[in-house]
Amino acid sequence: MKYKTCVSIAEKTPLKVKQTTKIALKKSDYIEVRFDFLKVEDIPKTLELIKKDLNKIVCTLRPKTEGGQFPGNENERIAIIKLIAEYNPYLLDIEFNTIKKNAALAKFLKSTKTKLLISWHDFKKTPSTLELRKKMKDMSRFSNFVKIVSTAKSTDDSTRMLELYSKKGKKNLISFSMGDFGRISRILCLYLGSPYTYVSLGKAVAPGQFSVDEIKKITNLKK
Amino acid sequence: MKYKTCVSIAEKTPLKVKQTTKIALKKSDYIEVRFDFLKVEDIPKTLELIKKDLNKIVCTLRPKTEGGQFPGNENERIAIIKLIAEYNPYLLDIEFNTIKKNAALAKFLKSTKTKLLISWHDFKKTPSTLELRKKMKDMSRFSNFVKIVSTAKSTDDSTRMLELYSKKGKKNLISFSMGDFGRISRILCLYLGSPYTYVSLGKAVAPGQFSVDEIKKITNLKK
Repeated sequence: MKYKTCVSIAEKTPLKVKQTTKIALKKSDYIEVRFDFLKVEDIPKTLELIKKDLNKIVCTLRPKTEGGQFPGNENERIAIIKLIAEYNPYLLDIEFNTIKKNAALAKFLKSTKTKLLISWHDFKKTPSTLELRKKMKDMSRFSNFVKIVSTAKSTDDSTRMLELYSKKGKKNLISFSMGDFGRISRILCLYLGSPYTYVSLGKAVAPGQFSVDEIKKITNLKK
Repeated sequence: MKYKTCVSIAEKTPLKVKQTTKIALKKSDYIEVRFDFLKVEDIPKTLELIKKDLNKIVCTLRPKTEGGQFPGNENERIAIIKLIAEYNPYLLDIEFNTIKKNAALAKFLKSTKTKLLISWHDFKKTPSTLELRKKMKDMSRFSNFVKIVSTAKSTDDSTRMLELYSKKGKKNLISFSMGDFGRISRILCLYLGSPYTYVSLGKAVAPGQFSVDEIKKITNLKK
């Protein structure tokens, strides 16, 4: 089985996004473009520049309330999300907290047929297994691609995130922990069925993240 | 496949060793008794006390020069090693640096038919892959059970230790890294063919070590 990677890209200009996309796709199966690092007015242009590669791109427009950098207001953010959806990328990452309270958006996104990745992050801790399972279930209502990420303060936290894979039918689940204790989950999630793991091109972007080269070496061991 | 554990026990009295052995063998496939934590004169009595379980015990008598605690001199240590060998434990851990310069000892140990685990540790760094491969080859002359352990200062160090499993015929290789960057290798070595991984009963004894409960949870995920 081939273990897949997704390089996170957080560049600040359309050209940089395009250039880094080209480089990253030589090494990685997928990439994630963090559109929230761009100026709002540069996003349409960026989409045009990387149009041809969008079938391998996870598009993310993270608001500040969820650890992101999007500089505009929420109405602008929703408008841009809709625009991205019309490009039919590989996946459109949309926060559970965004979609669950916006039925009109959910309906619109459905109409575009773009695959959604429903995401939820806890930047402080790892909730109880009961809470996690409930969250996962609620998230699954919107898509079978679900990304649920916690912050591990112990090996046990990280293991509990991996235990979510034991639920049958969670084929497109991405579940792991951030932080030093979570490093192992960023690899083991692949062995348990995650469609890919997030990596950096060079230095780690998120806490505990491996680089694409590091992960490739490790997963190649198990070929 | 069942992934196996070996709980390291470093108790200071014969009775404590016996009690902890009983507890640990309820949770772990194997245990390692660190005889160097005992007084020299208590070792024979300890061997008698745990005699019945020795077929699941890795016996180790680490000298201070190799990170151990053995309080006596080298002649005493060799004498005790010979005594342990006559009990035919599951494995007798003997340092490569000890056996390579003592042909008489090597011959004696062979005569006891006790399986040897030839061990080598680097407490400061991870040597080059070339050095590691040469070391492994030299160690294999004395037994097919080889334990080669480094200290990882990066993910790459840890991965290089795991790459040693790619050599064909290394069925009984135990290769991993100590330290925070090595934690992942303590689990992945199992998936690559290590006969077991060292764990603690409670709190970690060695740097980066998992507890038996932590590892069981993780390996159970992959059943």
